[in-house]
Amino acid sequence: MKITAVIMAGGRGERFWPKSRNSRPKQFLSLTSDGETMIQKTVNRLRPLVEPEDIFIVTNAAYKDLVKDQLPDVPECNILSEPCARNTAPCIAFAAAVINKKYDDAVMLVLPSDHLIGYEDIYINTLRKAVAVAEQGKNLVTVGITPTYPETGYGYINFGAETGDAYAVERFVEKPDRPTAKKYLASGKYLWNSGMFVWKVSSIMYNLEKLMPDIYEGAVRIGEAFGRPDFSEVLVKEFTAFRSESVDFGIMEKAEDIFTIPGSFGWDDVGSWLAVERINETDDDKNYIEGDVISVGSERTTICGGKRLIAAIGVEDMIIVDTDDAVLVCSKNSTQDVKKVIAQLREQGRSELV
Amino acid sequence: MKITAVIMAGGRGERFWPKSRNSRPKQFLSLTSDGETMIQKTVNRLRPLVEPEDIFIVTNAAYKDLVKDQLPDVPECNILSEPCARNTAPCIAFAAAVINKKYDDAVMLVLPSDHLIGYEDIYINTLRKAVAVAEQGKNLVTVGITPTYPETGYGYINFGAETGDAYAVERFVEKPDRPTAKKYLASGKYLWNSGMFVWKVSSIMYNLEKLMPDIYEGAVRIGEAFGRPDFSEVLVKEFTAFRSESVDFGIMEKAEDIFTIPGSFGWDDVGSWLAVERINETDDDKNYIEGDVISVGSERTTICGGKRLIAAIGVEDMIIVDTDDAVLVCSKNSTQDVKKVIAQLREQGRSELV
Repeated sequence: MKITAVIMAGGRGERFWPKSRNSRPKQFLSLTSDGETMIQKTVNRLRPLVEPEDIFIVTNAAYKDLVKDQLPDVPECNILSEPCARNTAPCIAFAAAVINKKYDDAVMLVLPSDHLIGYEDIYINTLRKAVAVAEQGKNLVTVGITPTYPETGYGYINFGAETGDAYAVERFVEKPDRPTAKKYLASGKYLWNSGMFVWKVSSIMYNLEKLMPDIYEGAVRIGEAFGRPDFSEVLVKEFTAFRSESVDFGIMEKAEDIFTIPGSFGWDDVGSWLAVERINETDDDKNYIEGDVISVGSERTTICGGKRLIAAIGVEDMIIVDTDDAVLVCSKNSTQDVKKVIAQLREQGRSELV
Repeated sequence: MKITAVIMAGGRGERFWPKSRNSRPKQFLSLTSDGETMIQKTVNRLRPLVEPEDIFIVTNAAYKDLVKDQLPDVPECNILSEPCARNTAPCIAFAAAVINKKYDDAVMLVLPSDHLIGYEDIYINTLRKAVAVAEQGKNLVTVGITPTYPETGYGYINFGAETGDAYAVERFVEKPDRPTAKKYLASGKYLWNSGMFVWKVSSIMYNLEKLMPDIYEGAVRIGEAFGRPDFSEVLVKEFTAFRSESVDFGIMEKAEDIFTIPGSFGWDDVGSWLAVERINETDDDKNYIEGDVISVGSERTTICGGKRLIAAIGVEDMIIVDTDDAVLVCSKNSTQDVKKVIAQLREQGRSELV
């Protein structure tokens, strides 16, 4: 069966401010020294499994030109522009309806646009297994990451009986506190929820019809209009009427035949500035430094230079990011407070900096 | 007797990089929120005692335009441009010779251009006492600061017998280590050496002739040429031939009739970025913040913003300084290492940043 991929690229990525902005969120930035952006990496690592013409990018209409520029191999008609943000369930329903119109049925990989994968061969191999499971019946398959430490920032997947390469999913759980996360790891029955899904278009449409009929019906109307002159009009009308809902809550937590394929392929969700030192090589003092920087006695510090010199002297456990109009100097313990700066900027009406 | 002031403004002030540069050292910067530069403050606080036309600025020829711009009340002919840097003894000899030519004899206050004074009335009162002592005989008077803590970054003056407002100086001592500094404080016989001197022109010329005859003779030739068409030529010839020597070592440590007037008037030598929080008001979290800054949870941090936004999140005990072409992020424990950055920039041939 034809394998397609839907890459969700509508996020606003505030956690990488000041490098990420509303006008250019994380998935369109390079956070690695090779200069490739996150979404370019996402598409390129799929090449062994999916042709560029079978890759669909669902994104905010405002980012369509960024997608075109960064992914010239993806056909323009595969860029699905959401008129507004409605979380992942409407996003996936939109893409499923379009693929359904184009290919009747197909396997559909649903992937975030802003994660990193260290071991791409193992990743592709894991996806192949997920495809095989998805092709059977009405299975909804999610890729679970084998945890390596008790992370409190991810949701977890509790799995049960083994059936071949896959495990039946018992339940999805929200981000735990640390003692709970430790219990999950000790049990050997919990995986990290990576937000990657694999299913046939027919399987997700079946479940949408059953569990989210309002969104199903709107999506069907969008799919029917795809390619017609009135497509934009129908899309705006139907999509803006959708309620905002995640696919996890709307479908995965309620559907039957949910399976998980455990994977371990150097996955990183690149969730904050702290990730940069994890995903890049650091120097002898455990600093990650890019750009025009003079460091004297600095340790365990991430410095992303811009056009000007940054002199870092005796700096420890900090994040320093320079851009043309803003500099961030942030303790590693406070990276979650970047959003407070953005909130202040919004309050001050300084949208040019957000 | 006429009271004149000689303000020594030839320093290159590397410790305030990146705000200070070779092209605009510390004395020509404002480090306080009122916007006045250090040299402007130095001149303005002398107003009760010295007329602007009796204030002489000895500076590097490269800074003449800065002096003219910042001190429009000081006559241009009072700006004495050193063709090269030769430390304080030749600087003072040059100024003494010029004042000698202009006024025959006069009292001469010799003052740094880059210190701050908190209590200006008390300062002027202290200088008046020093003037009174200087007018008697061939006395050389230095203003000593009553120490408030065992500072290891200043030289000290050991004083002996009291004679009116003044005390006879026993000896000048170099920067002590901490135990020695503590002993000095406990003894009640040591003052900080502020680098401020008061004497008659005739007294310093007498001592120069006796203790540094080579410099005395050159200075006399410079003084004779002052106002003549060949002045520049004579100045360059004589001044460049001077050896580099401090007035402390060349005169003060060897002369007789050395007195000190103890003063306590909120003196601060503004020796490094650490001084900025001392000389300005800080917020409730002990931060000193100027410019376009958003601070979230930062403490005891000095932030001097430039044209761009600085976001400081969870930053503690740091110095952050933004300029158009360089940003400094420096631990308070490492402010002495600013000079290492300048050394690296010199090695890299990046003189535009020095």
